Amino acid sequence: MNLQGLRVMGIDPGLTRCGLSVVQAGRGRQVIPIAVGVARTPSDVELSERLLRISKSVSDWMDEYKPDVVAMERIFERSNVSTVMHTAHAVGVMVLAAAERDIPVHMYTPSEVKKSVSGNGRADKKQMTTMITRILGLSEPPKPADAADALAIAVCHCWRAPLLARASAIEKLRKN
Amino acid sequence: MNLQGLRVMGIDPGLTRCGLSVVQAGRGRQVIPIAVGVARTPSDVELSERLLRISKSVSDWMDEYKPDVVAMERIFERSNVSTVMHTAHAVGVMVLAAAERDIPVHMYTPSEVKKSVSGNGRADKKQMTTMITRILGLSEPPKPADAADALAIAVCHCWRAPLLARASAIEKLRKN
Repeated sequence: MNLQGLRVMGIDPGLTRCGLSVVQAGRGRQVIPIAVGVARTPSDVELSERLLRISKSVSDWMDEYKPDVVAMERIFERSNVSTVMHTAHAVGVMVLAAAERDIPVHMYTPSEVKKSVSGNGRADKKQMTTMITRILGLSEPPKPADAADALAIAVCHCWRAPLLARASAIEKLRKN
Repeated sequence: MNLQGLRVMGIDPGLTRCGLSVVQAGRGRQVIPIAVGVARTPSDVELSERLLRISKSVSDWMDEYKPDVVAMERIFERSNVSTVMHTAHAVGVMVLAAAERDIPVHMYTPSEVKKSVSGNGRADKKQMTTMITRILGLSEPPKPADAADALAIAVCHCWRAPLLARASAIEKLRKN
């Protein structure tokens, strides 16, 4: 399976702060960074308006960079229920934006991303930033700092995509 | 405050089953039923496609019935985390659909709805159905049965809207 050229949009979902990235798969395990950024919405604005803004930002990125696939961090229940709910609402509108453009969405848990990128499912933020800087051949750590996660998610998908493609091809052969 | 004619869309959010209703405020506490239904998406379909379908159904209702306001049940953490997450994703796309049409959204907890409609914050399903049937002057309980909740949420907003309008007017007077 050669997925060279595959363009992946990585999303670290959030309503207050949402990490966005775009990378492109190169030869072998090479990954080329295309864009990185953070979409923010102020917490004192109404939920409707915040979802409208997040939807607009993510849609603009999709229309500008035309990713083949979206990779997103799967959210889990954490201590602050209200934050999780807000994040889950944001995930809803972002998955919808992808679906409206026929872009498939893959979800990865934080430990899947860490394991794939650093070899260690429990790597800390510093280790992850170091690895991402190295993998993407950047001269300094990606900025803004909290967008590094979005890059890691996109890299994780680039490296797992060949396996997923192979698994799906085998599945199809079995059915025929 | 006379809110006669106010058209309220009630939503009992869900991804597998989403209750939808439209009512109109009459004189005093009179509420006129306009429409009731359930939008469903099969659980064996991908999340992207399900959110696309829910968004389409809710948008179609909004475009057909042109509500002035949307009233929605506020979701809480329940036992099944996966269901709550799915519901939260659906809420995101439904709030977005309202925001795109400049329709304000109000959220009510289940006990606020029960208290407003039946006088008892812990009323059971049967009591609620009886009250809704009576309030809306229906000859028989609303069908489908699980859409009764969406009607209750809309009725709750009709009755609370005058209070909310008065509170907001007082707030404005204070600021000036």
